[in-house]
Amino acid sequence: MRLDSMAKSTVAALAIAALIIPAASHAQDAARVRAAVRAYQQANDVHVLRELTELLAMPNRASDSVNIRRNARHIAQMLERRGATARLLETPGAPPAVYGELRAPGATKTIVFYAHYDGQPVDTSQWASPPWTPTLRDKSLADGGRVIPMPTQPGTVQGEWRIYARSASDDKSPIVAFLAALDALRAANIRPSVNLKFYFEGEEEAGSPHLREALTRYRDLLSADLWIFGDGPVHQSRRQQVSFGVRGVTGVGLTTYGPARALHSGHYGNWAPNPLVELTHLIASARDLDGRILIDGFHDDVRPPTRAELDAVAAAPSADSALRAELLLHSTEADNALLMERIMLPALNVRGIAGGGVAQQASNAIPTQAQASIDFRLVPRQTPARVRELFEAHVRKQGFHIVHREPTPEERLAHERIIRLDWSGGYPASRSDMSSPAARAVLRAVEMGKGERAIVVPTGGGSLPLYIFDEVLRTPHITVPMVNHDNSQHAANENLRLQNLLDGMQVYAALVAHLGRVWTDTP
Amino acid sequence: MRLDSMAKSTVAALAIAALIIPAASHAQDAARVRAAVRAYQQANDVHVLRELTELLAMPNRASDSVNIRRNARHIAQMLERRGATARLLETPGAPPAVYGELRAPGATKTIVFYAHYDGQPVDTSQWASPPWTPTLRDKSLADGGRVIPMPTQPGTVQGEWRIYARSASDDKSPIVAFLAALDALRAANIRPSVNLKFYFEGEEEAGSPHLREALTRYRDLLSADLWIFGDGPVHQSRRQQVSFGVRGVTGVGLTTYGPARALHSGHYGNWAPNPLVELTHLIASARDLDGRILIDGFHDDVRPPTRAELDAVAAAPSADSALRAELLLHSTEADNALLMERIMLPALNVRGIAGGGVAQQASNAIPTQAQASIDFRLVPRQTPARVRELFEAHVRKQGFHIVHREPTPEERLAHERIIRLDWSGGYPASRSDMSSPAARAVLRAVEMGKGERAIVVPTGGGSLPLYIFDEVLRTPHITVPMVNHDNSQHAANENLRLQNLLDGMQVYAALVAHLGRVWTDTP
Repeated sequence: MRLDSMAKSTVAALAIAALIIPAASHAQDAARVRAAVRAYQQANDVHVLRELTELLAMPNRASDSVNIRRNARHIAQMLERRGATARLLETPGAPPAVYGELRAPGATKTIVFYAHYDGQPVDTSQWASPPWTPTLRDKSLADGGRVIPMPTQPGTVQGEWRIYARSASDDKSPIVAFLAALDALRAANIRPSVNLKFYFEGEEEAGSPHLREALTRYRDLLSADLWIFGDGPVHQSRRQQVSFGVRGVTGVGLTTYGPARALHSGHYGNWAPNPLVELTHLIASARDLDGRILIDGFHDDVRPPTRAELDAVAAAPSADSALRAELLLHSTEADNALLMERIMLPALNVRGIAGGGVAQQASNAIPTQAQASIDFRLVPRQTPARVRELFEAHVRKQGFHIVHREPTPEERLAHERIIRLDWSGGYPASRSDMSSPAARAVLRAVEMGKGERAIVVPTGGGSLPLYIFDEVLRTPHITVPMVNHDNSQHAANENLRLQNLLDGMQVYAALVAHLGRVWTDTP
Repeated sequence: MRLDSMAKSTVAALAIAALIIPAASHAQDAARVRAAVRAYQQANDVHVLRELTELLAMPNRASDSVNIRRNARHIAQMLERRGATARLLETPGAPPAVYGELRAPGATKTIVFYAHYDGQPVDTSQWASPPWTPTLRDKSLADGGRVIPMPTQPGTVQGEWRIYARSASDDKSPIVAFLAALDALRAANIRPSVNLKFYFEGEEEAGSPHLREALTRYRDLLSADLWIFGDGPVHQSRRQQVSFGVRGVTGVGLTTYGPARALHSGHYGNWAPNPLVELTHLIASARDLDGRILIDGFHDDVRPPTRAELDAVAAAPSADSALRAELLLHSTEADNALLMERIMLPALNVRGIAGGGVAQQASNAIPTQAQASIDFRLVPRQTPARVRELFEAHVRKQGFHIVHREPTPEERLAHERIIRLDWSGGYPASRSDMSSPAARAVLRAVEMGKGERAIVVPTGGGSLPLYIFDEVLRTPHITVPMVNHDNSQHAANENLRLQNLLDGMQVYAALVAHLGRVWTDTP
């Protein structure tokens, strides 16, 4: 369904062209835009908050096909109210992506702003207020926040208030902040410096099963110089961060086999092989207590951190020691190496082990089988296929015969040690070049918006399928988040701290107002 | 409650004295006793079976104080019917032990025959017929055995029939077989060669919590030259075995600690320590894949097998390879070393590991804690206290701070690695001297009863608190079992193969008839 028309789009472009004004210098520009956004917020904070709560009131699970389309149409209308063209990009069997476009005459660069409008499923019983009834509190629930009425007087919104609702942080508020930033610029007659496209996904929390198909189908429409992702939180220190990548991921389930029936550990202990012992030796052989992966060849594919990445880590503030105290950890792996440094490396994590019984369930028996689950986090140049190959070679070297389904009795009898491996696909890491002109321009623009240095994060530790954007669109992407880190993302009582909404408007306004110019100015 | 009187006891002794007849040689003696028992079985098999089923019909959990006393009184009456004195030995809070005594004038040795009359709890839903409704089948359930009526015609009992009931094997049938053996001897005017005492325990399956107190309290009454235990099964080959010991046991629960709340394995993987990884390294450091225990000093306390023990193992038939096939094991630990050889060594068995989630329950998280459960099997000279000391020293050497209850937040913050250890008491091994005159005499008498060589087992792999007999009574003990190995002991559908009942009568009759003489003949 196409909601706009060429005619409308032209009108919008002309309207914005009328707002162009020259600026004396970057610093003056920055101050002027910040002042404009502040002024707009003073007069319209109540209005911005109302636009957010209207959107949050719509149930938004990707699987709820009726409501997810209500969200999509609503967001398309929000785009149109800003003079953008808007349409729903359909992919069979998927919630639509909401696409929008707003040209800036004279601009030479085009960015796509990405967010997703679907949310994680909810367990209503765990919520202090219903997930799709946006509820304002005077501070966080953890700090004893109490419900307060929605404000009606402009200029009264407080930064420490929080709005509680599913997707308040993940990921609806960046949509609202970005569009409100456009309103603030227009109110001050400040003209966008880049052409804008919008791509709001509707199935991110369901694992983006149709993302590749959608991007491929609309590749031409989505052509741009850069994608800006609004997803994810700012730094724990509440300072703005800009992130250039994510780790890849792959997972494997392991099952080892002992005797066909559980055996008395007295009568058969130290005669019959114990599948739990086999697992412990295998896992211990694969990684040490400092997180080093001991699999031959594993690090051959790992590109070392670049100078720029190392500089970024050195310049970033560390919340590590506060985090250790909060987590009751005396120390962390590799002699308290910095978290930000560690997540630039691949990881082998043991998600679980199960076999036999412990505590009251322990019986004097040798169990018939044991299971473990491992997830690998990958860094650039590693692929799930290669990790699988290297891990399986390691497992074989430990004396195991590998099967990928339940072994037959004949197979069990034929091999001293047998293991079943169940791989779950996974995908590679993605990292954009931190020293490209685009990257430096984004950092500059963001800093103009916040009036302070941003924290540069070479990669987040988690995984998102950004590689699909790399592979299909071959366009760099940079994440400029805005929500608070303590937002209970994916869990009950998800919330947004309103100062983050106000700050997010500043950052996105700065991107729109300055990015085009600082980009072309960047050597 | 004393059921007998000195007068009765004297009458019984005189009655048996009248049966004494001399024998030409051991071989002739053996043949004559075997023939006498066979003749008695031909005429009285139905009667023996009826005495067994009457006893099996009485519910016999140690915790069922009313029924357990019914069993005790019934067994005391069975003893009295054989002219033995009988009394119930009371210990406060415990089911009584049934004690009996039958003097053999002229005998210089006294043996105590031990069995227990209590049984394991039952899960009735798992039984093919009710556990305390003795049910005869024409063969084993596993082989498709069908219920048949109890025989009424003497001489018709078939060896492959099985009687299904709780304690059919463990441990009521040895009581019935021993007393029936006395009947068979008396019917043939064959006089016992040893003084007999009986000690039938009523809480063995409940862990014998009052055994030490009972043995201490009745130490003088229980004085003897040798205890014969009727508990446990014969060899898997169905050949008679004589066992000289048991392994000791102790157990420990292990809990390791990670971050105070589960962490996203992407954001924090290879930064936050993973408690499952700590456990795998600890366990792998403590024992290898061949069952060798790698704890410093662990083997210092282990006495090597004696010449006689090694000879016994060499002479014993091995069911190992059939067992491997049945268990779908390509091979067993230490290059297929013999089961009987392996259980002469201490063992470290992992009973269970649990932490995080596996398969469908796996989530991308670093779990907050992980648990394991280990049981140690001990051999002579090892003590649970020393094992605990050595294991804890090993754990400390792996960098753990040890606590024995939930660690406080302060403790978690103060130590790089922290582990909670929960020990369950345990007890030492017990092994009787296989080359003593008593041991050789028992073997000789048993072989006279079966007409073939017995399998000599230096120690069983399992654990029983026989050390209490050692410590309190300082009397050697030898286990002469009779029931089939495939008896579903402790489980549903416990059963006794009737040939084992008939053979058991032969063995016990031979012990009674020959032991005294072969013992004094033994150099």
